[in-house]
Amino acid sequence: MEFFFKPKGIALIGASANPYKGGNSILKNLIKGYKGKIYPVNPAYPEIEGLKCYPSVAVVPDPVDLAIVFVPAKLVPGVIRECFQRKIPGVMIESGGFAEAGARGQSIQSELKQICDETGIRLWGPNCMGLVDFISKKVFSFVSPTLWDYEFIRGNVSLIVQSGMLSAGFIIDTMSHGVMGISKVCSIGNKVDVDECELLEYLLGDPETAVVGLYLESFANGRRFLEICRSSRKPIVVLKGGKSVKGAAAAMSHTASLAGNSAVISGALAQAGVVEAVDFKQMLDLCRSLAMYPEIPPKVTGGVAILTYSGGAGIVSSDFIDKTTLSIAELSQSTKDALEKIYPEWMPVANPIDLWPAIERGGSEMAYGEAIKAVCDDPNVDVIFLHYYAGGFALNFDISSLVEIARKSNKPMFCWLMGEAEKARKFQTNTQNLGVPVYRELYRAVECMAAVFEREKPEKSDLPSYASGFAISENFKAELENSKGALDEHISKKILAGYSIPVVEEKIAVSAEDALNTARSLGFPVVMKGVLPGEIHKTESGLVLLGVSSGEEIKKIFGELNMKMAGKGNILVQKQMEGGLELIAGMVRDPQFGPCVMLGLGGIFTEILKDTVFAVAPVSHGEALSMIGRLKSQKLLNGFRGYPPVDREILAKIIVCLGALGCGNPQIKEIDVNPLIAGKNSLVAVDATVVIQPGF
Amino acid sequence: MEFFFKPKGIALIGASANPYKGGNSILKNLIKGYKGKIYPVNPAYPEIEGLKCYPSVAVVPDPVDLAIVFVPAKLVPGVIRECFQRKIPGVMIESGGFAEAGARGQSIQSELKQICDETGIRLWGPNCMGLVDFISKKVFSFVSPTLWDYEFIRGNVSLIVQSGMLSAGFIIDTMSHGVMGISKVCSIGNKVDVDECELLEYLLGDPETAVVGLYLESFANGRRFLEICRSSRKPIVVLKGGKSVKGAAAAMSHTASLAGNSAVISGALAQAGVVEAVDFKQMLDLCRSLAMYPEIPPKVTGGVAILTYSGGAGIVSSDFIDKTTLSIAELSQSTKDALEKIYPEWMPVANPIDLWPAIERGGSEMAYGEAIKAVCDDPNVDVIFLHYYAGGFALNFDISSLVEIARKSNKPMFCWLMGEAEKARKFQTNTQNLGVPVYRELYRAVECMAAVFEREKPEKSDLPSYASGFAISENFKAELENSKGALDEHISKKILAGYSIPVVEEKIAVSAEDALNTARSLGFPVVMKGVLPGEIHKTESGLVLLGVSSGEEIKKIFGELNMKMAGKGNILVQKQMEGGLELIAGMVRDPQFGPCVMLGLGGIFTEILKDTVFAVAPVSHGEALSMIGRLKSQKLLNGFRGYPPVDREILAKIIVCLGALGCGNPQIKEIDVNPLIAGKNSLVAVDATVVIQPGF
Repeated sequence: MEFFFKPKGIALIGASANPYKGGNSILKNLIKGYKGKIYPVNPAYPEIEGLKCYPSVAVVPDPVDLAIVFVPAKLVPGVIRECFQRKIPGVMIESGGFAEAGARGQSIQSELKQICDETGIRLWGPNCMGLVDFISKKVFSFVSPTLWDYEFIRGNVSLIVQSGMLSAGFIIDTMSHGVMGISKVCSIGNKVDVDECELLEYLLGDPETAVVGLYLESFANGRRFLEICRSSRKPIVVLKGGKSVKGAAAAMSHTASLAGNSAVISGALAQAGVVEAVDFKQMLDLCRSLAMYPEIPPKVTGGVAILTYSGGAGIVSSDFIDKTTLSIAELSQSTKDALEKIYPEWMPVANPIDLWPAIERGGSEMAYGEAIKAVCDDPNVDVIFLHYYAGGFALNFDISSLVEIARKSNKPMFCWLMGEAEKARKFQTNTQNLGVPVYRELYRAVECMAAVFEREKPEKSDLPSYASGFAISENFKAELENSKGALDEHISKKILAGYSIPVVEEKIAVSAEDALNTARSLGFPVVMKGVLPGEIHKTESGLVLLGVSSGEEIKKIFGELNMKMAGKGNILVQKQMEGGLELIAGMVRDPQFGPCVMLGLGGIFTEILKDTVFAVAPVSHGEALSMIGRLKSQKLLNGFRGYPPVDREILAKIIVCLGALGCGNPQIKEIDVNPLIAGKNSLVAVDATVVIQPGF
Repeated sequence: MEFFFKPKGIALIGASANPYKGGNSILKNLIKGYKGKIYPVNPAYPEIEGLKCYPSVAVVPDPVDLAIVFVPAKLVPGVIRECFQRKIPGVMIESGGFAEAGARGQSIQSELKQICDETGIRLWGPNCMGLVDFISKKVFSFVSPTLWDYEFIRGNVSLIVQSGMLSAGFIIDTMSHGVMGISKVCSIGNKVDVDECELLEYLLGDPETAVVGLYLESFANGRRFLEICRSSRKPIVVLKGGKSVKGAAAAMSHTASLAGNSAVISGALAQAGVVEAVDFKQMLDLCRSLAMYPEIPPKVTGGVAILTYSGGAGIVSSDFIDKTTLSIAELSQSTKDALEKIYPEWMPVANPIDLWPAIERGGSEMAYGEAIKAVCDDPNVDVIFLHYYAGGFALNFDISSLVEIARKSNKPMFCWLMGEAEKARKFQTNTQNLGVPVYRELYRAVECMAAVFEREKPEKSDLPSYASGFAISENFKAELENSKGALDEHISKKILAGYSIPVVEEKIAVSAEDALNTARSLGFPVVMKGVLPGEIHKTESGLVLLGVSSGEEIKKIFGELNMKMAGKGNILVQKQMEGGLELIAGMVRDPQFGPCVMLGLGGIFTEILKDTVFAVAPVSHGEALSMIGRLKSQKLLNGFRGYPPVDREILAKIIVCLGALGCGNPQIKEIDVNPLIAGKNSLVAVDATVVIQPGF
C-alpha cells in the first residue's frame, strides 16, 4: 500500500485548468502539499497550474508509482490498462458513474475488477475522495482547496469513510473548527479492489495512527474485518450506516451495498472488541477520547470523582454516570479529610465534589489542586471528571499541573467545558494538547468516558475441545438428504442431542397405550405434540397440548391429534418442564459474517423487547459467556422470584455447540432452539428446528 | 412581579467600587443596560462609577421599587427590614451563605421567610444570579460584565434556572457562541419566597416569551407546578437534576432540596404535557426548536422526507428516525414522478432523497428546489429534514425560498448542517432567522424533531363519575383503625372490590372441608394461601401454594399452613388464574406530588426491566389511557402468543379508581396490586396490599 500513502511520483489523469472542475482541485491540492513529482495528464493542455501537462500516461517520465484518475467512467478501463502498461502499481479512481450509477456503471465496474484480477494492478475507489494525510499534508483528493485556509492539526486518529461526501465533510468541518487533530482520512467509495480491511491493516501498522474510526455502509469481507479488529491493540470505532429497515433500504440504493442485520453487526463488533458509534461527530469524539486513552484503564472499582464548580452540573453528571457501568466513587476517609480542610465547616463532603465553597475560601488553584491530589491518592477513584468554565467563576488555575498529577497516578481525566467561546476554544486546545479530552456537552463526556472503560479485550476465539469436529454424523445423513427445509422437532432435537445439547426427555408414541406408558415413565403431567412434516406452527394449529395429566386424557388426545394430522404425522410424548425461565438460542447464516449464533430471552422478551445477542461462529467458551453478559436482561439469569439461577457454563456450552454445528455443516441453514427452558438444575431444549439449505 | 422585571428605580445595597467584587459587577451591568434610576447603597463611598452613593436604603429617593442586595448573609435580614420601611415592594438577594451553607445560614434563611410572611415584601433568591433580560438589556446580576462584549441576541426562549452558576454559564456560553436568541434568564437560587411557579406563570403571560426552559433541582410546589404546565399553551421544557440515587444525594447537599423519584417526576411531567430534557445544551436545543414550532404540528402520517446531498447521512438519519415515533415517509407517486425528472435515469427514487446525482445534473438550486416542492405537495410527508453543507459540494441555493415553500405548505422543516466553521455559523444564523432550526449533530436534529411532534396536549384531568366520592366506607373503619401498617391480602382486596376494582374470587376457609367446598365451587385447580397479619413475603415464607388440584391435597395443605402459621392466620382459597399477562398497579404518596398512581408490567418486567409509569392522582380516564400507552412494552397489551389482549378501558378504570382511593383517603399510605392478572376476558387483582399511614 506504500504507493498509495507515500508515492514517489503521481500522474493525475484528467487534470484540468478549469477551476470549477475536480481535476483542477486535485492538482491544486497536490501542488500545495505533496513533495514528490506531479504529472498532469490531459491531451487538451500543454501545461496546467505551471506544470508540464502530458497527453497520455504512457509518456509520463519516472518516477511515477501512483495514478489519480478523474475522467468519465467509460474512459476509466482504458486508462487503467495504460497505467498497467506504464508499470504504475496503484491507481486511485476518484470519478463516479460506476456501480452506484445503474447497470451501465455496474458493468464498467465489473470490467475494472477484471483488469485488477488479470494484471495485479491495485485500484482504490472508484467513486471516492481519495486520501488526505494531515501529518505530511498530502491531499490526494478533489476536496475543495479552501481546506488550505485552515490549520492542518496533526493528530493520531485516522478515518476510513465509505461515503465520499462525508469524508470531505468531516475533513473540512473538523479542520475549520480547529479542535481535533487527524492523521489520515481514507475515502474508499465503491471499493472495487482496495477495501476497508486492507486500509485498516495498513493504519493499524502506521506509527502515526493510534485509533481508527470507520464509517461503513457494507463490509467487503465481514469475517476478515472482524479478525483484523480482534487482533488489533489499537482501539477501533465503527459507525455502521443502514441498521434500520429503512436505513438498509437506503444503503442498497446508495452504494449498492449489502446492509446487514443490526443485531448481528452489533454482536459481531462487540465480540471483536470494536467500539460502536451511532453518529458522525460522536464517532469523532469517541475516536479522540480513545486516542488519548488507548489502553483499557485498570477498572478497580469503576469509581468516578467529579470535581465541579457547579453543584447542578455535578448532579446532572451523576444522573448520566448512573446509566453506565461506571459509578460515583465512594470517597475514602483520607480524601474526605483532605476536602474537609479546604471546605467551610458547614459544607458536607460528598462526591460530586462541589468545589465552589472552597474556591470562595481559598481560590480555584488551591481548591482544584487539593481536590485532585486527594482523589488521585484515593483507591476508590479510577477516573477524574473535571468541570471547567472558561472566562468566569474565578477559575484561573493552571490546568497543566492538575493534568500532571492525574497522569502520575495513572488515572484518566476527562473534562467538561462551558464558557466564553474564544476562551473556551483556547482552553480546549491547550488541555487536549496535554492529553486530556475536553467536551462541550455533559452527556457526550460521560458517554466517551464510559467507552474508554467499557471497552473489552476480545475473548480468545479457540473452539473448545468439547465442540470440535462437529460434522454431522452418518446417522442423520438420510434425514438431511430427504428433507425439504425444516426438519421436524423430534429429529431436530435428536441431532442437537448428538452434539452435546441437552434436550427434553420425549418419545414417539405409536399407540395410545404406548403414550400412556411413556407418560408413566416420564411422570405426569406431560406434553403431547402432533409432529407433522413441514408444519412449523404447531401451537397455532392446535398440535401442542400442555399439562396432560391422566390416562383418560392421553387416550382422548391421542385420537384427536391423529385426526388432525389425518394419520400422517407422529405423536410425541414429552416431559413437561415446570415454570423455568424461557430462553431462545439459534444459529443463522449472515450474508456478511457467515454462521452466527444467537441467544435471547424467550417468550415475551424475544418478540416484544428484542433482547437478543449475536456472535459470529465459531465462538469460544469465553466468547459465549461474554455474549450472555451482553443480554440486556442478563440479570434475570442470576435467579429471580420463582426462577432458579441459570447455569451460565452450560448455557455457554450450548451456544458454543450451536456455533460448531453451523461451522461444521454447511448443509444446515439455520437452527432454532425455542424454547430452551432453564429450570431447577436443568437447561434443556424443549422445542427445536433444524433447517436444511435448499438444494442439499 | 412587575417590580422585578420592569422596576422604575433600583437600590443596589452592597454596591462596591472594587472591580473584583460582585457588588461592582452588578452596578456596571445596571449602568450599561438599565434605563431607570440606579441608587448604589454603601456607607463606605460617596460615589461609585460616577453615581451618587447612599449610606443606607432609607435615604434613597424616589422612584425605587426594587432593591438588589449583595451584602453578607448575616446583614441581609436587617437590610430587608429597611427595604420594607422604605416601602420597596421587591428585593432580589444575590448573596450566598443561606440554606445552602449549613445550620447558621439555614436559620438566617428562616428569618427571611418570616419577614416575608410578616410584611408581604417579595424576596427573589437568596443565593442566586438574579435576572437577565436580553430584550431590554436589563442585567440585574453579578454575572461578569464581559457579557457586554457579546451581542444580546433577542429570542423568545426564557429560562428559569435553580443553579446560579449554571444560569450565568448558560448566558455567557450561549451569547458568546452567537447562535441562539434568549428572552429572559431567571436564576432562582434558594427560592425562599419567589419560586419557579410564580416565575413560570409570569413568563407564560409574557408576550416576549414563546417557550420556557427550566433547570430544577427541586419543586417548590409540585402540584401547582404541574397545574401551571398543564394549562399552558406555550411549550415548557424541564431538566430535572438529581434523578439517580447518587444524583439525588448530590441535590440534597447542594441546595438542601428534596429530589424526587425519577419515574414519578417523568410521569408527572409527561402527564402535564412538559417536554423532559436530560442535558444542558440539549435543553436549549429543545427550547429553540419548540420556539420555532410552538404548536403541535398536524401529524397525519408522521412521515419525514429527508433531502440530502449525502447518501450516507441519509442512511444514518433513517436509523435515528426509526427509533422515534416518526417514520420515513413513503413518497407518493407524484413525488416520485417529480424526482424522476431531476434524477439521472439510472438513479432509483427513494426516501432518503439523495439529491447528489440531481445536483450534478442540474445544480443544487434546481435539485433542492424541485425536491422541496414535490415533498411539500406530498400528503405522506409531514416534516422536512434538510441536510446542508456550508462552503462545499456545490451547494449554493437560496435557503429562504425553500423555507418559504415549506412554510406555505405548513410543514415544519429542520436542518442538519456541516461545513466550514464561519460559513456554517452564518448559514445557521440566517436560516434560524427565517424560522428553521439548524443543528450540528444528526442525532440532536432528530431528537428535537421528534420532540416537536411527540409533544402531547395534556388530557383533561376530570375525575370520571364512576370514581368520585371514594372516601373509605364505614365498613372498613375498624380494620383501618386497628391496623399497624400493611393490611392483609384478603381485607385489602375487599377494600379494592368496594371501589370498583375487580378482584379474584376467593374465600377464607375455616376448615379443610370448607376449603374443599370452596375449591369445588371455584373449580380446580385452586390457590391456597396462608394469610398472616404483618406477613408481606408470603411466597418466600412458603405460604402460597399454586395448582392445588384435589381434595386430598387441600386437606394436607390446610394442615401444613395452619402449622406454619401456628394457628394464627387465616387460610384463603382462591380461584387460580391461568397464564395471563401479569401487571402491577398501585398508589403511592410522593413527597413532591402527593398521591400518585403506578402501572407496570408485572413479574420479571417490574423488577428487572423497571417498565413502570407514574401519574399524579387524581387521574382522568383519558390520562389513565395515556399512561398505559407510555409503558415501554405496551405493545404486549395488544395480545401476544398465548396472551389475550388486555382491555385497556378496564385497566384505565382500575388506575383511575386507585388514584381516587388515594386522593379520598389520606389514611391510606400506599396500595400495591401485584399481580393484576389479565386473562381471557378478565382482569383481576390476584394479590393486593393496602398500607395504612402510621398514626392513623
